[in-house]
Amino acid sequence: MNDTPILDRDAISAAARRISSYLRRTPLLRLAGPDLGLPHDVVLKLELLQASGSFKPRGAFNTLLSSPIPAAGVIAASGGNHGAAVAYAARALGVPAEIFVPEITGAAKRALIEGYGAKLVVGGPDYHAARQASEARATETGALTVHAYDQRTVLEGQGTVALEFDEDAPGLTHVLVATGGGGLIGGMAGWYGTGATRLVSVEPEGCPTLATALREGRPVPAPVGGVAADSLGARQVGALMFPLAQPAVEAAVLVPDGAIRQAQRLLWEAARVVAEPGGATALAALLCGAWAAPAGARVGVLVCGGNCDPGSVLA
Amino acid sequence: MNDTPILDRDAISAAARRISSYLRRTPLLRLAGPDLGLPHDVVLKLELLQASGSFKPRGAFNTLLSSPIPAAGVIAASGGNHGAAVAYAARALGVPAEIFVPEITGAAKRALIEGYGAKLVVGGPDYHAARQASEARATETGALTVHAYDQRTVLEGQGTVALEFDEDAPGLTHVLVATGGGGLIGGMAGWYGTGATRLVSVEPEGCPTLATALREGRPVPAPVGGVAADSLGARQVGALMFPLAQPAVEAAVLVPDGAIRQAQRLLWEAARVVAEPGGATALAALLCGAWAAPAGARVGVLVCGGNCDPGSVLA
Repeated sequence: MNDTPILDRDAISAAARRISSYLRRTPLLRLAGPDLGLPHDVVLKLELLQASGSFKPRGAFNTLLSSPIPAAGVIAASGGNHGAAVAYAARALGVPAEIFVPEITGAAKRALIEGYGAKLVVGGPDYHAARQASEARATETGALTVHAYDQRTVLEGQGTVALEFDEDAPGLTHVLVATGGGGLIGGMAGWYGTGATRLVSVEPEGCPTLATALREGRPVPAPVGGVAADSLGARQVGALMFPLAQPAVEAAVLVPDGAIRQAQRLLWEAARVVAEPGGATALAALLCGAWAAPAGARVGVLVCGGNCDPGSVLA
Repeated sequence: MNDTPILDRDAISAAARRISSYLRRTPLLRLAGPDLGLPHDVVLKLELLQASGSFKPRGAFNTLLSSPIPAAGVIAASGGNHGAAVAYAARALGVPAEIFVPEITGAAKRALIEGYGAKLVVGGPDYHAARQASEARATETGALTVHAYDQRTVLEGQGTVALEFDEDAPGLTHVLVATGGGGLIGGMAGWYGTGATRLVSVEPEGCPTLATALREGRPVPAPVGGVAADSLGARQVGALMFPLAQPAVEAAVLVPDGAIRQAQRLLWEAARVVAEPGGATALAALLCGAWAAPAGARVGVLVCGGNCDPGSVLA
C-alpha cells in the first residue's frame, strides 16, 4: 500500500487558485439551535448556491483547467449534478460536452444539462450503466473523461469546499457531509486530514456506499435506491477517496428517506433554503438522531445541492 | 422643518447590538455578470434567509427590546412579512401577539404567522384597512403597536441591514432596494446617508409610493396593486423615512410585474434562491433596464424576502 496521499492542502490550495475566478465563494449561514429543534447551533455552508446548483463544478473546472482538452471536448456520466457541472464548465471554457445520465435522472437535471448547451444521452437504468456507456463513447471519440468522483483533479477541486469552510468558520469540531461516490468527502478529507475538525459522512439507508466500505475495509458494491439516488446513488465509493476518508471520517451514518424529506422541509421552513434530497441528507442525520453532537461540539453542515423542482421541498 | 435626522449610524449600531443575538447575519453572494445576463457582477445580500423569511424581524426585535411591553402584548398590521416578524419576535421574547392582515395576504404568510403562535385577524381588503382595524383593537387592549415602517425603532432595526452590507461588502457604489412603506430603505438611508454608497429604490409600477413621494416632495397616497402588493403594498411611504430617503436615494425607479416574475425565475435558475415577488423586485430593475449601472459601478442588491410558495417562482 502506498501511504502517500493523492492530495494534500497544497494541492487543494492550488486547485482553489486555478478555479476561483470561475466559481462562487458560497456563503455560510448560522442557524440557532431552536430554529432547527436542536440543542446546538449549526453553521450551514450553502454550496447549493454554487454555479450549476451543486459543489460539482469545483472538480469539473479543476479537471478541465489541469489537462489539455481534445477537439472532441469532454465527456461525463452523471446522475445529473456532475453532468450539469461539466456542461457549465465546458460552456465557460468554450469546449463541447457530452453527458450520459441514467434513466432515474429527473426533468430538472436534464433541463439544466441541456440548458448549458451539452449533448444529453440517456445511458442506462442507473449511474453504473450510464458510466459504462460513456466510457465506450469516450474510447470512440477521444473526448476527455471527467469522472464524477474517482479522479485526482476532481478530488482536489471538491476539496476546496473544505478550504473555504475552514477559512470562513474556523474551529468547527465536526462537519457533516453527504456521501455518494465520495468525491466530496474524499476531497474534504484531503483538507481536514487528521486535524481537529472531524468529518461525519451521512448516507441514505438506500445507498450506503461509504458505511459499507469502512466496515469492510475497502470499497465494495452497495445497493442503490431511495429519494436521493439521483445524486448519491453511486454503486461504490471511489478507490482514490478511500485512503483519504479512512483517517478523517469519524463516523459514517445512515438516514432513512423520511428524515431526508423532513430536512428538506425544515431547511425551507426555517431558512428559505431549497435543497434537493442529497443536499439535505447531511442535516437529516442531526434531525433523526443518526448522529448526535457531543457536548461542546461546533457543528458545520454542508448543503451540497439544490437541483430539484423547488415546490418539491414541501411535497 | 426639523433638520435633525431621527436616526444615524450610532442609533443603528446600538440597534444592531440590541438585536444581534436574536437574529442571523445574512450572507452575501457574488454573482458574475454573465450568470445574470448583465455587464457587471452583482453582490446579493440574502436577507430572505433571515429568521421569519424577511428583513422585518430586525425592526420588530428592536422595537420590542426598546419598550416596556404591556400585559396585552404586541399588535401589528401587515401584508404578512411584518406580521410574521412580530409574531416571531414575540414568541422569542415570550409575549402574546395579535396580527391584522389584509385579505390579499396569501396562505403561506398566514400559515407562517399562525405557526409562530400569534393570533391572526383578517382586518379588511388592503393593508390600510388592516392597519385601521389594528389601531382600533390596540386602543381597546392596550397592546404595544409595532408599525410596519413608520416608527423610529423600526427604522433603526431595518438600518442594520445596511450596517452589515457595508461591513461585508465595503465600497459598493450603489445598493438597490425594494420599497413599500419605506421602512427598509429609510433605515438604510440612515446608515448610508450622503456617503459614497447611493441607494436606488425599486418599486412595482403597481405600487409607486416612493417614486410618487419624491416627485411630489412629500409622502402622498399612491395606488396599490400588482404581484408584489402583499409585501410592497403600502398606500404611501412613512413620514419618518422621507427626510432620510431624500438625500440618500439617487433614483426611484419602477418595474413591471413581468420583470419581477423574470427576476424570481432567474434567481432560482442562476442561484437556487427563492425570492417572493417583493424580494425579487430590486433585481428586476437591472434585468429590465429600469436602472442601469454606470461604468465602473459596484452594485449590491438586497433580496429582502422569500415568503412564498417555493414552486411559485417557476409559475
